[in-house]
Amino acid sequence: MRGIAFAALLAASVSVAVSGPVRADVLIDNVNGITLDENGEVERFNAVLVGDDGCIEQVYGRRDKRPGKVDYSMDGRGRTLLPGMIDAHGHVMDLGFAQLTLDLTSADTLAEAQAMIAAYAAAHPDRPWILGTGWNQETWGLGRFPTAADLDEVVSDRPVWLERVDGHAGWANSAALSAAGVTARTADPAGGRIERVAGSQAPTGVFVDAAAKLVEAVVPTPRPEDRDLALAEAQQVLLRNGVTTIADMGTSIEDWQTYRRAGDAGSLQVRIVSYAAGTDAMTLIGGPGPTPWLYEDRLKLNGVKLYVDGALGSRGAALKAPYADDPDNSGLMRMNETQLGNLMSRAAIDNFQVAVHAIGDEANAVVLDTIDELTETYTGDRRWRIEHAQVVDPADIARFGRHGIVASMQPRHQTSDAAMAEARLGSERLAGAYAWKSIAATGATLAFGSDVPVEPPQPLEGMAIAITRQDEDGQPFMGWQPQERIAREDALAGYTTGAAHSLFAEGRLGRIAPGLRADFVMIDVDPLLASPAELRAARVLQTWVGGKMLYQVKETSRPAEGR
Amino acid sequence: MRGIAFAALLAASVSVAVSGPVRADVLIDNVNGITLDENGEVERFNAVLVGDDGCIEQVYGRRDKRPGKVDYSMDGRGRTLLPGMIDAHGHVMDLGFAQLTLDLTSADTLAEAQAMIAAYAAAHPDRPWILGTGWNQETWGLGRFPTAADLDEVVSDRPVWLERVDGHAGWANSAALSAAGVTARTADPAGGRIERVAGSQAPTGVFVDAAAKLVEAVVPTPRPEDRDLALAEAQQVLLRNGVTTIADMGTSIEDWQTYRRAGDAGSLQVRIVSYAAGTDAMTLIGGPGPTPWLYEDRLKLNGVKLYVDGALGSRGAALKAPYADDPDNSGLMRMNETQLGNLMSRAAIDNFQVAVHAIGDEANAVVLDTIDELTETYTGDRRWRIEHAQVVDPADIARFGRHGIVASMQPRHQTSDAAMAEARLGSERLAGAYAWKSIAATGATLAFGSDVPVEPPQPLEGMAIAITRQDEDGQPFMGWQPQERIAREDALAGYTTGAAHSLFAEGRLGRIAPGLRADFVMIDVDPLLASPAELRAARVLQTWVGGKMLYQVKETSRPAEGR
Repeated sequence: MRGIAFAALLAASVSVAVSGPVRADVLIDNVNGITLDENGEVERFNAVLVGDDGCIEQVYGRRDKRPGKVDYSMDGRGRTLLPGMIDAHGHVMDLGFAQLTLDLTSADTLAEAQAMIAAYAAAHPDRPWILGTGWNQETWGLGRFPTAADLDEVVSDRPVWLERVDGHAGWANSAALSAAGVTARTADPAGGRIERVAGSQAPTGVFVDAAAKLVEAVVPTPRPEDRDLALAEAQQVLLRNGVTTIADMGTSIEDWQTYRRAGDAGSLQVRIVSYAAGTDAMTLIGGPGPTPWLYEDRLKLNGVKLYVDGALGSRGAALKAPYADDPDNSGLMRMNETQLGNLMSRAAIDNFQVAVHAIGDEANAVVLDTIDELTETYTGDRRWRIEHAQVVDPADIARFGRHGIVASMQPRHQTSDAAMAEARLGSERLAGAYAWKSIAATGATLAFGSDVPVEPPQPLEGMAIAITRQDEDGQPFMGWQPQERIAREDALAGYTTGAAHSLFAEGRLGRIAPGLRADFVMIDVDPLLASPAELRAARVLQTWVGGKMLYQVKETSRPAEGR
Repeated sequence: MRGIAFAALLAASVSVAVSGPVRADVLIDNVNGITLDENGEVERFNAVLVGDDGCIEQVYGRRDKRPGKVDYSMDGRGRTLLPGMIDAHGHVMDLGFAQLTLDLTSADTLAEAQAMIAAYAAAHPDRPWILGTGWNQETWGLGRFPTAADLDEVVSDRPVWLERVDGHAGWANSAALSAAGVTARTADPAGGRIERVAGSQAPTGVFVDAAAKLVEAVVPTPRPEDRDLALAEAQQVLLRNGVTTIADMGTSIEDWQTYRRAGDAGSLQVRIVSYAAGTDAMTLIGGPGPTPWLYEDRLKLNGVKLYVDGALGSRGAALKAPYADDPDNSGLMRMNETQLGNLMSRAAIDNFQVAVHAIGDEANAVVLDTIDELTETYTGDRRWRIEHAQVVDPADIARFGRHGIVASMQPRHQTSDAAMAEARLGSERLAGAYAWKSIAATGATLAFGSDVPVEPPQPLEGMAIAITRQDEDGQPFMGWQPQERIAREDALAGYTTGAAHSLFAEGRLGRIAPGLRADFVMIDVDPLLASPAELRAARVLQTWVGGKMLYQVKETSRPAEGR
């Protein structure tokens, strides 16, 4: 299978690239088209006609008569065409900003890191601060933390602030120390430590844990220009991965203004569905209710993102029983049920959709309780979203099937977290961990996402994980808690129809069908037939949004002998 | 002249009202058309063709051949058609909110006021507070201030807060006292007085001067729904007065979001050009620079509104020499020249336009000095706006002619302020007061506005004042400081071409010419021929924005015998 797809790819020649502003009818013929239909059944097709309004006009089987005359036609050479992938949970601006900071994870020595920092600073003369992440002195064989002086050697004209790979320390140059006003007289803050020169109180430049806030507090907030650039970068990453729509979890007014600027300028390419960062931002952005779909369905505020607990890794997730690896700790609820109910009511009364972050089984139970109560008042099609639903008491799983709840889950969190989750939860609670099959079986809608930039926004990899529960090395054999593996069609639904439903967008997005937006991806495997390894390694060849091809892989960038 | 126009009005029958969403070619024929041309010369025409894009397609003289076929045509019956009036300085949301609060100025007794309050509360059961203005116990023959108990008799279920006609006192009911937490133990704040029950410390319900803030602090901020309603009301008032475009001086992010909601919903009718309330709002709204024209030129952020001093009435305007009626006081600069320069630079560096409120001669001199300095750095077409330019040292007037300065002045402030200005300034400084002719003579652009809701948004009245410097009773004879009267054409320019220039909108608005937006008003006098009294009393018969008639006077609402 892969050989064939691969040969087709190499032979491919695209007759026209419709990426300009001019729209026209486009027939994309001879594709291995796959979509789910309104009932969730797989539908295969052979060609699709896109109208000049950016919507799908018609879908054709192999023997269906093609339209007599179109402005452009493209031979798909048998490649697979899927609906545009929808990432149901991500952080658009964080993704963008991550593209704009220096990534030091590849530096194997201090000298290499210094060279990268110098090159980056030279390449970005207009950045008032040089920001980065990913350094790890353990791999450098230094036997010590790096110092401000190490940084001053390469950048002394402006502040440099670099976060350690684990996020638990930061490294400043002298300009940053001085901007932060940190001197030998600065005391260590609670929960943090300023590294000091031996035999002196002078700061070395490294700040551990809470001490990092001393510098973070003076890092300038991004300028609008920076935000615009970050959004552009984020869109490129998403399009490269076949993501045509993303739910933005925690939109601030500054984020929203950035999206609107792009919309006004015609440079909003990926569709963004926003969930505001709290009810104040919700009201400021949406006003009396959710916004309309703007810019031909490229932007909408649907509702609000709330947090009810923290994360499992840092033991902030609220559990019903203590952590297996920390018997005095059951995590922490960020608010009680009354507070949660009040905030959810505040949103629901104005018909905003509510998305609540809940990781631990206690947190999930509280959200489920609150939804039970609220549905007595807020009737109708509410699509209460539970974000992550990571650890659920098996006794609570059935409750996901009520009130039209959406379980917004991130397949790759399962493989990233598996070992950590076993330590935190012990074996008994794993039955309800990342339990997408059990949750879907209740009738809840599964909406899949990446939580980008926490995980990369790769829906095809996500599908591979959803059907295998194995990491990229194929471990563990048969998959982790393999009873929770789901069918390929259901994994596809998670990134298409299910995700569209989670956004109230099923009438516009998520399928290849007449009248819907012409969002689709061309890939080099058939996801319903390929091996999991092939699916994980599948390449996005083209990404179309609203009938325009906005991304196309550079065919020559891949050696002919394959990966 | 007036008789003829009036007869035409009574006989008028409009063949079609194009106020629906469908657009088409519309020929408006047989009008007394007046516009200024690109050189400021008066141009008369007889018909105008509006295209289905909402722009003017062609302008016809009496003998010019009309187009062969149009979707609709309308007989103007010889009435006068002018470009849509542009109010170069107003406060859109304040105007709207003023429409939504109770106006008690017509109450002649406490009982009448009570009846109005009761009726208003009954008509607005969903308003959490009842707010109003305009009461004056002096006219009620009470011999005392009103009390909370007087209000409780008519509204006790929610707070009531009513501002006195002069804005220097407020009247609360018991629910408002309780919401504010004001009791017998509450001390008078600095600069304010809580009226107390005789022989007791109990508050009566009236709060004088700074004490009013005790209650104002708990008046809820408007909900988005209230803002939307206020905007709709403001637009109605503007359209009724023939205003098709307004510069909004001091736009907050909440205001901007309200305008965008209207734009997104297609209910933005009047064009709004925003000047943000300070540089933070400017950056949040505009981002890296002014927004583009949005919604077919119905909304744009141009720049920022800054304040350098206060007002003349309250002796807050900064004067070079002390107030004539307060010899120890020269007013107050809100910021020094360095601060002003920094804020103006902050805006100018990103190409935002700067509009600075300057009332007193010292304030105007400081702004002129700052502009002198900034133009060395910020070259190009900046159109620095000085708002009000109310009292200018005659020695400084010539400086308005440099650097493309726009003098944004409000004719009716002159008639409203004349007596007060004489008291404040003495006779010597009047030569530079409201000196629109002298300022225009320097080459500065005059842009006229109303400062609504401080004054009503009535451009035709404003034109009458600009050419007479007389109030509505024709006083003083020959006009106040009559040397500053300007020609009718220049008064028209102030509300059309000059105002458009002040907004960088001369390529879109302000004239009747092919390619510009089809914004115009039909009125019942010829402003270049009517007597000043006729002009002041002129009625707006129709207001068109973007080729759609959005206001039409109710012909029957006016008695046939005239005013």
